[in-house]
Amino acid sequence: MQMATAVENVVFRGLHKFLRQSNCKLFTSTESRRCLNGNSENSHHIKEAGFGLLFDIDGVLCRGHQVLPEATSAFNKLRDRHGKLRVPVVFVTNAGNCLRQTKAEQLSEMLNFKVTPDQVVMSHSPLKMCRHLHDKHILVSGQGPVKDIAKGLGFHKITTVDELRDMYPHLDSVDHSRRTILKKMTNGEKPKIDHPQIEAVVLFGEPIRWETSLQLVIDTVLTNGCLYSRPTEVPKTHLPVIACNVDLLWMAEAHLPRIGHGSFLLCLEALYQKITGHKLRYTVLTGKPSEITYHYAETVLIQQARKMGIQSPIRTLYAIGDNPATDIYGANLYNEYLGSKLLQQMSQAKSVAIGGNSSNFLDSSEVVIENMEHNCAEVMESVLVCTGVYSKTTSLEVLEKDPVDHGHRDFHFVPKLATPSIEVPCVHLAIKEIFKRENFD
Amino acid sequence: MQMATAVENVVFRGLHKFLRQSNCKLFTSTESRRCLNGNSENSHHIKEAGFGLLFDIDGVLCRGHQVLPEATSAFNKLRDRHGKLRVPVVFVTNAGNCLRQTKAEQLSEMLNFKVTPDQVVMSHSPLKMCRHLHDKHILVSGQGPVKDIAKGLGFHKITTVDELRDMYPHLDSVDHSRRTILKKMTNGEKPKIDHPQIEAVVLFGEPIRWETSLQLVIDTVLTNGCLYSRPTEVPKTHLPVIACNVDLLWMAEAHLPRIGHGSFLLCLEALYQKITGHKLRYTVLTGKPSEITYHYAETVLIQQARKMGIQSPIRTLYAIGDNPATDIYGANLYNEYLGSKLLQQMSQAKSVAIGGNSSNFLDSSEVVIENMEHNCAEVMESVLVCTGVYSKTTSLEVLEKDPVDHGHRDFHFVPKLATPSIEVPCVHLAIKEIFKRENFD
Repeated sequence: MQMATAVENVVFRGLHKFLRQSNCKLFTSTESRRCLNGNSENSHHIKEAGFGLLFDIDGVLCRGHQVLPEATSAFNKLRDRHGKLRVPVVFVTNAGNCLRQTKAEQLSEMLNFKVTPDQVVMSHSPLKMCRHLHDKHILVSGQGPVKDIAKGLGFHKITTVDELRDMYPHLDSVDHSRRTILKKMTNGEKPKIDHPQIEAVVLFGEPIRWETSLQLVIDTVLTNGCLYSRPTEVPKTHLPVIACNVDLLWMAEAHLPRIGHGSFLLCLEALYQKITGHKLRYTVLTGKPSEITYHYAETVLIQQARKMGIQSPIRTLYAIGDNPATDIYGANLYNEYLGSKLLQQMSQAKSVAIGGNSSNFLDSSEVVIENMEHNCAEVMESVLVCTGVYSKTTSLEVLEKDPVDHGHRDFHFVPKLATPSIEVPCVHLAIKEIFKRENFD
Repeated sequence: MQMATAVENVVFRGLHKFLRQSNCKLFTSTESRRCLNGNSENSHHIKEAGFGLLFDIDGVLCRGHQVLPEATSAFNKLRDRHGKLRVPVVFVTNAGNCLRQTKAEQLSEMLNFKVTPDQVVMSHSPLKMCRHLHDKHILVSGQGPVKDIAKGLGFHKITTVDELRDMYPHLDSVDHSRRTILKKMTNGEKPKIDHPQIEAVVLFGEPIRWETSLQLVIDTVLTNGCLYSRPTEVPKTHLPVIACNVDLLWMAEAHLPRIGHGSFLLCLEALYQKITGHKLRYTVLTGKPSEITYHYAETVLIQQARKMGIQSPIRTLYAIGDNPATDIYGANLYNEYLGSKLLQQMSQAKSVAIGGNSSNFLDSSEVVIENMEHNCAEVMESVLVCTGVYSKTTSLEVLEKDPVDHGHRDFHFVPKLATPSIEVPCVHLAIKEIFKRENFD
């Protein structure tokens, strides 16, 4: 890391010096990177897209079941006269309570063209890569086809919260109307205690009847997965807890942002901490803004580009979203990662090619470009639209003046990272702006 | 207050000096007070009870629907050969989701003798005294007959969370299965916007489907009760929020403590703070451990004593509970209040009777006793039983070694106040110990 930082300083100091001498506007780091790799506005005149688009769904393309008219016009612009996409597109949603197939079908209906499941990245999709967890017996929380989702990701020993509730009916006693059932059971039936131990908890998305999931997930963590036991102490290191989608708020049909899975997680964390005096720790957090999700989405997007026959590198990714705390924060975080990776590669290539002569940076950068792996992007731009959670004309403007951290606890709040590189009123104008920047139309 | 503290120092310094001279064991402040007022073990030989009992219900007398055998034997001890109570008794529960009548019926069935509604103090009972709030249009959260409870307390403009949800169906969109209904509504029906403004929120007890109440209560607070509006800023001072019952955990049939209304409040507070950056503030908090509840319970208990024909003062109250964070904390807090009140009265009486001669404290205390209003208690003892939330042989023993604050945010955590003055295994042994102390049998 130290080497990368040193190299960064040398390269960008040299670049800025050159730009000053050439009377150029002082570029930002992101812009410098793009320029460095020959992707400036003036150097790109080919029709083949050298960029890709990552679309958030709720608040960008639709509000609940209502498709936004700007989404329809944006996708008209993105397709050629045969109706085919001209730019590689991936839909990256923090929704976690449905299958990719279902989401692809919803999008196809909404946007009036065929969206395939492999164009969809759900918040849980990166869990496919967590093979070391697939053999564990998991408790899954969420709603909808959570068992099928878990199976699709590679898990095969799965218990849902509702199944656990049926096994241990006395553990969920918030609803008074259930107490008559519990009374009968106390007098006769005994709960089953032969259920295998839960070894990990996977929180896919917001459940229904939060009190049930809050109670049973806390019980599972506290008893280390043996719910019939009475723990003798609060476990110092608890079983793995995996959470997908940390969106505190999201935008549906209502005129106000609605609580999302991040709100459920906040309740769970607050309760666990209050009851035990210890912090609930996540083994994996997926969904935006986590890097793992953007990394996965990038891989999927490049596969899409290759399927479309695009052979040239996809250097710039545009992540279009409505939520500064997840879409924008995550895109900027991933952009930082891409930047440091690029500089590391440059540094390695340079030390081979020019033996550490850093003063002649333009030569060195050319060497770097030749030696670079072109299968990954170099820049991710964050594009904020105002049709969802964020709006310039609502209460959130006030929140913007006096920023409130709507991000998850485990992502350190850096206000700069919640600031978009591009801000536009809607998704249609986002595409227009991107095409202009990329000299693509 | 300053005067009371000065008086306290003088009186207790004198008392301790006297006890040391007489080779007596050094009494605690509470014991000193009892001694000071002639209520020591040796001075009390009459059959008429000079004390009263405040019983918590869950974890003390029952576990869910299961009556504890120790409760039956305790009440056998408390009744005379005609089946009538020999000691004034009040049941003080933090339950808030049912009517006093219902709770009295449940207790009658459970304990096998007639418990009347006026022997029951629910967590919301003290709201009867909050007349300045009764004319406000309130939103009530909880389950069961919340509307009837609110009416019984004096409110007359009442909307429940479920009614609000019907009026603004789009505001509650966590449950995916409701989205089809919402889709239809978007295409046709419009929500009613002629509902009068909500002016206060009353949280009676844990609701069912926490996500719905969390969302709608936050919306109500954020929009200042006009849910159809889109707020332009987070209100600096929001509408009154009243919460009854802050029990984080309670003990039902299950082998582990269960989340209670305090857990719901914790989620609400955490979410409101995260979304707005501001703290949710309560106008009134009722139920144990709040002083208002003990004050109310004391008044009810003294009325009970008078009904039983007891004319002598009820000097000592024993509050028997299973929860250190509420039952014990609250009883000790109220005991501190009684102590300071007693000292204030002593100070006033003394300045009239003996013109400030504080060295002769025994004389002065006698004067005080004669001048005291005997309608209020002087001491409250906290009695912890181990049949509920607290148990010496479970995880909570660990929590005790390394105390975790299970109390509500608004009650400053003083570990000393969660320590009982008497600890016994069960309610039967609690009565035995109290009778011994009071020389009553």
